[in-house]
Amino acid sequence: MFLKIFQNECLHFFKPNNFKGIGKRNLRNRPDFTKNRYKVTRGNYNYLREGHINYFQALLGHKRVIMDLSDLEKYNVDWYTQVRGCSSIVLKPKTTEEVSQILSFCNKQKLALCTQGGNTGVVGGCVPVFDEIIISTELMNDIISLDENSGVLVCQSGCILQNLDNFVAEKGLIIPLDLGAKGTCHIGGNVSTNAGGMRLLKYGNMHGNVLGLEVVTANGEIIDCLSTLKKDNTGYHLKHLFIGSEGTLGLVTKVALQCPPRPKYRNVAFLGVQNFDKVLKTFKFLKAELGEIISAVEVIDTPTMDFINQIVGQTSPIGDYPFYLLVETSGSNEQHDEEKLNHFFEAALKKFLVLNGTVASEPAKIQALWSIRENIPNGFKICSSKMMYYDVSMPLSNYYSIVNDVDEFTKGLSERVFGFGHLGDGNIHLQIQLKDDLTDEIKKHIDPFVFDKILSYGGSISAEHGIGIIKQKYMNRLKTVNTLNLMKDLKSLLDPNKILNPYKVIV
Amino acid sequence: MFLKIFQNECLHFFKPNNFKGIGKRNLRNRPDFTKNRYKVTRGNYNYLREGHINYFQALLGHKRVIMDLSDLEKYNVDWYTQVRGCSSIVLKPKTTEEVSQILSFCNKQKLALCTQGGNTGVVGGCVPVFDEIIISTELMNDIISLDENSGVLVCQSGCILQNLDNFVAEKGLIIPLDLGAKGTCHIGGNVSTNAGGMRLLKYGNMHGNVLGLEVVTANGEIIDCLSTLKKDNTGYHLKHLFIGSEGTLGLVTKVALQCPPRPKYRNVAFLGVQNFDKVLKTFKFLKAELGEIISAVEVIDTPTMDFINQIVGQTSPIGDYPFYLLVETSGSNEQHDEEKLNHFFEAALKKFLVLNGTVASEPAKIQALWSIRENIPNGFKICSSKMMYYDVSMPLSNYYSIVNDVDEFTKGLSERVFGFGHLGDGNIHLQIQLKDDLTDEIKKHIDPFVFDKILSYGGSISAEHGIGIIKQKYMNRLKTVNTLNLMKDLKSLLDPNKILNPYKVIV
Repeated sequence: MFLKIFQNECLHFFKPNNFKGIGKRNLRNRPDFTKNRYKVTRGNYNYLREGHINYFQALLGHKRVIMDLSDLEKYNVDWYTQVRGCSSIVLKPKTTEEVSQILSFCNKQKLALCTQGGNTGVVGGCVPVFDEIIISTELMNDIISLDENSGVLVCQSGCILQNLDNFVAEKGLIIPLDLGAKGTCHIGGNVSTNAGGMRLLKYGNMHGNVLGLEVVTANGEIIDCLSTLKKDNTGYHLKHLFIGSEGTLGLVTKVALQCPPRPKYRNVAFLGVQNFDKVLKTFKFLKAELGEIISAVEVIDTPTMDFINQIVGQTSPIGDYPFYLLVETSGSNEQHDEEKLNHFFEAALKKFLVLNGTVASEPAKIQALWSIRENIPNGFKICSSKMMYYDVSMPLSNYYSIVNDVDEFTKGLSERVFGFGHLGDGNIHLQIQLKDDLTDEIKKHIDPFVFDKILSYGGSISAEHGIGIIKQKYMNRLKTVNTLNLMKDLKSLLDPNKILNPYKVIV
Repeated sequence: MFLKIFQNECLHFFKPNNFKGIGKRNLRNRPDFTKNRYKVTRGNYNYLREGHINYFQALLGHKRVIMDLSDLEKYNVDWYTQVRGCSSIVLKPKTTEEVSQILSFCNKQKLALCTQGGNTGVVGGCVPVFDEIIISTELMNDIISLDENSGVLVCQSGCILQNLDNFVAEKGLIIPLDLGAKGTCHIGGNVSTNAGGMRLLKYGNMHGNVLGLEVVTANGEIIDCLSTLKKDNTGYHLKHLFIGSEGTLGLVTKVALQCPPRPKYRNVAFLGVQNFDKVLKTFKFLKAELGEIISAVEVIDTPTMDFINQIVGQTSPIGDYPFYLLVETSGSNEQHDEEKLNHFFEAALKKFLVLNGTVASEPAKIQALWSIRENIPNGFKICSSKMMYYDVSMPLSNYYSIVNDVDEFTKGLSERVFGFGHLGDGNIHLQIQLKDDLTDEIKKHIDPFVFDKILSYGGSISAEHGIGIIKQKYMNRLKTVNTLNLMKDLKSLLDPNKILNPYKVIV
């Protein structure tokens, strides 16, 4: 029975009557198949056959080979319901050796694979496009060691980020990465996508924080670069090949992570600013004044604040201003941190950099201020059928120009254009609220303008979300021919049969 | 005349009468040729011929093609006088395009190359082994841009580290890298060796601080990954291939570097500690108490302090203790930083973690305390004929064990064994003072023991200095077969004719 379904490439697979209570998703939210929406042609891979299934079941046992249609849905659709594949099998290895055997077998059999962690990616990177075999890291969730002297944590790649942070918190340490999806995402996915998030400003990105990796390449070979040392200059620094390559060069099985001391005290300031020029001047001033204790600098524009007010009833606690800054400090001395932040705030008021503001030290008030920022994505998700969003990196001098440009270009089509995000990292989330529901035609009209503009400013069309399948077609425009060719050569070297996460990043 | 010399592979090249006032080096210090000392066989490269020289002179002009024997010496011997090549030509390109043309030409002609920055490496990585053409980055020293809002500096790879730091200091920024060799080393060399140094504890390594690179690969292709963005997740993160690969995969031509705000105030504590267990406990305590303002934690043992006292008259300002810790803080508020450090010091005394100490805030006293640490390498250099030194990374729990092990093993041969270094990064400099001058026989006896011990503790035989030629023969023992094969595959992919820095790192 299975074989027919596989060979029909999704045609009959997701019939409504196959669904039986599938978590929070419902049928109305199911997107069109990725292959149709993004016009992808299936690669020349083998189809899954009974012999393959027998092999996997012998290796993992029946319980760790998932083929029940109702169980498969959540692996085939992403959290944002943008992409949809039609894999008919999920494998759940527990060990590196099992991963190695699966990959070795699939490589010989030319079976395509898609590795999935918490399935929280937003560019369709961890969801199959066709019938790729899904390898879920759900059961690879052992914490292997924590060296309390050095702060080095070693764990399997399927550990959930929040669980790791809870674990190291007990020892006075912090995971140097914090995402909205932390309760679901896996550390292996964070590594594979070079995830950014809220703490990047303070602790830097995964390339700086990952001390070592264990990775299995397409042919099943285990690459052991699981160093736990801060300094280790012996040979090529291979781990970086796998950080941010979105599972297309290898499957991360273990991670060694540097965990800094957990800051003891947090303070937050919420500030009203007159224009974007003053936002930049305030940012420069606060870097000089608060230096080592800054842990987040977020910006929110008026359209975003108004929208969140309308949709979720969230208001500005300081009245209306053209721009708002949320500044967080994290330090080791409560009194010092408060003094610094208050001094900065008073000086910024005197210099007319900020017009108004409030400073919080108590956890409840801090949480209330952060909830303004955190409510933004929730608000946008409610109106998602009319929304277009872009994850953009910009040089700071033109950080907000892209919002004005897009506002001008989409006049008549858009209701409002919003800009908010991690100012401290040059990362702006650009959102367009359309008058009508988003169609592929509108997307085709607006996307090229936005991407061209971003590139003309020297920005990046994917700050922290990666390329996945959704931005794949733009890769040729983002890089020089030499650079693209080197990426393709690396792919061919590490995965000659192109079985790892096909159709994504580099094709 | 030249051709004969080249083809004799160094036999006649460094005759004493070729030397005419060559800086601070003298003939007594000239080491044996690397090819003899390390028993290297010349690769199947072409020899330099008149046609090649004509090509280089046409491309660069006569002044930027150095062939005068007296001028060549300083490029053929390293600073520590450990290695010696016999190149007869130094090329001094100014632009990426010139580098591209040189590499393209040499690749076609199968001429081997050795790139050299400030020639401050300590593993023979930037000095030719045979007659490799030396490409000096001395004239690639343009600072291209500094974005004061984001702190992003873009420059050519031949800029001297100290010059860059002076330049950004004027704008209130700091280069996140500080080395003893900063007045001489080039930023391109720092990138290519993933240089560590004094500020790594605070700012992390080059993988975290380099935002973008421009690199020329062996065939002359320019790889443009000169992003100036903190977040840019578009495709493979190619720049990391070239960070730490010691010039064997490509020649770095431009660097984009993230420069944090320059700390305004420094404080230093110099502490006496009873044993290594208490050193570790003090380190853990100071991380918790001083958190975000710690910028250096250096350890010095008694044999090292005694030696420096004898050799350069440097004494401990706090009396004699088994171990000394030098702790530096860098922050944005003078009073806060002093308070934190004083509070830590008093609490550490009360807890009997430290036995005595002194704290300094005035620049002159800070400099005096740092000079104790900085005088150590100078002292050892004076007795270099009897010295063996190792740059080791160790898990903190066994950081000092290696010193005791080596002391025990070398009884009868050694006068003293010393341990000092960057405790905060797990990086110990292990030195052995022999009773007699170091010979190759002694080296062959001691090296394997030291390296075996380091590896048995899960340490690294090269923390920050790299592999170069000096540690090349150990590579097979440091990595698994799969890992080594992947390194070799990367070398073959990027430099199929193996013209870039041959005999080093991976052969």
